[in-house]
Amino acid sequence: MASTEHSTAATSEMDEEKEAPPPQDLTLGWVRDALIRQEDSIVFALIERARFPYNAPAYDPCLLPQQGGRSLVEAFARGAEVLQAKFGRYQNPEEVSFFPDDLPAPSGIPYNFPEVFHPASASVTANNAIWNMYFNDLLPLFTVEGDDGNYTSTAAADLVCLQALSRRIHYGKYVAEVKFRDAPQDYMTAICAKDRDALMKLLTFEAVEEMVKRRVLKKAMVFGQTVTLEDKTFDDETKYKVDPAVVARLYDEWVIPLTKDIEVEYLLRRLD
Amino acid sequence: MASTEHSTAATSEMDEEKEAPPPQDLTLGWVRDALIRQEDSIVFALIERARFPYNAPAYDPCLLPQQGGRSLVEAFARGAEVLQAKFGRYQNPEEVSFFPDDLPAPSGIPYNFPEVFHPASASVTANNAIWNMYFNDLLPLFTVEGDDGNYTSTAAADLVCLQALSRRIHYGKYVAEVKFRDAPQDYMTAICAKDRDALMKLLTFEAVEEMVKRRVLKKAMVFGQTVTLEDKTFDDETKYKVDPAVVARLYDEWVIPLTKDIEVEYLLRRLD
Repeated sequence: MASTEHSTAATSEMDEEKEAPPPQDLTLGWVRDALIRQEDSIVFALIERARFPYNAPAYDPCLLPQQGGRSLVEAFARGAEVLQAKFGRYQNPEEVSFFPDDLPAPSGIPYNFPEVFHPASASVTANNAIWNMYFNDLLPLFTVEGDDGNYTSTAAADLVCLQALSRRIHYGKYVAEVKFRDAPQDYMTAICAKDRDALMKLLTFEAVEEMVKRRVLKKAMVFGQTVTLEDKTFDDETKYKVDPAVVARLYDEWVIPLTKDIEVEYLLRRLD
Repeated sequence: MASTEHSTAATSEMDEEKEAPPPQDLTLGWVRDALIRQEDSIVFALIERARFPYNAPAYDPCLLPQQGGRSLVEAFARGAEVLQAKFGRYQNPEEVSFFPDDLPAPSGIPYNFPEVFHPASASVTANNAIWNMYFNDLLPLFTVEGDDGNYTSTAAADLVCLQALSRRIHYGKYVAEVKFRDAPQDYMTAICAKDRDALMKLLTFEAVEEMVKRRVLKKAMVFGQTVTLEDKTFDDETKYKVDPAVVARLYDEWVIPLTKDIEVEYLLRRLD
């Protein structure tokens, strides 16, 4: 593939969005750019899931009795994770499995992802909480009632949402690692005292959190509008594919708190 | 799940985007709304694929010798289609498999998708052309060179692009069916004479095609911008995650012509 054939227009964007750099390059600016880019992925994923109605049978453990009490969505997600693990998805420390106990080792692919995380902290996960939050709390807020029969496409869209949310929330490990490296002395006392509240306080910046919530609200408006050739402005009559207030609430109630939980749990193991 | 828990904000959007209606309800307006909504899905999918560089090893048949000459992307796509078929994805006539010969039947799920298409025309497919176009022509145009090791995530993103393009292009079957039903006499002569050129002429509306290309260009600008809390306007300095000109070219050179090919092939079998 000759280099001239490749896109150059996107180069400067991609520079901001490159995947995990070696540990010595890890900076808060890099982590922040990655988190901002992932907001787009989450909003896109929610909009694509909202193409389908709720589709309750996909979540009913009685739909497929041969799956032993697993809903179609769970059986599909487990199968998809097995397939993706086989080809190496979870070799990248950014990707965290929802069902890690059943995964095969990747075969024959030479992966060289750098070890960024402190070994004792690397396995911190919030995926059970993310799974439950997504299906119990979030999904009914941004889908309409109904059943159009597209259960597999629905399950695939759910998995894309879950993976985007999981990647975003587990980026808390990068945040914690880079903050610790930048100023270990700020965190040592609280880590040694196992003082979760003190760590949470050190990691909380309300002004930043407010900005993030306003930005994801705006992204939901921009990406979820119906684009036409006519110019138009946003007003109270504008219909969005996903309610922007739900996306802001997703960040307020779940993404930001779960990310901080990951940061705290990561730091508590950072000196082990 | 109580009905009040569900999103109402998206209802009117969803009304425009509901899945395949019973045959008697099929209208050109419904098909057109579905095609417009699918433009968003295609642009989102391309932007998400462009998160990763080209990642050449994913397309190299020598990476995984145990796959018998299949690249990681092909082996992954085949595995994903098997999994999705098992849970019924291809029961919906909108979804067309890239590797239909190896698919299992769905087990135990009661699907009731209406038969919209004329039986002799239903199996018309352009998926080989779409697969080759995507990997040989399109992918180098909107990815940057490089290898970040995320081959499985790349393959999954490729499959989302391919499925969105395939769904859009095979919607030509809906277009052809609804146009034929609306005015069969307009098409009979050309169908009986097996006159592809005459059918292509009947199905070509250059002003509409120009409008579609301008709209997808605008969607690529809107969805591929970097959204910040500051207001801003589009100018020559704006960086997009996928070059909008490439999206317009995708429609001009491939999506629109392949859709019309599907329409012609569908109509040629419409009286069988």
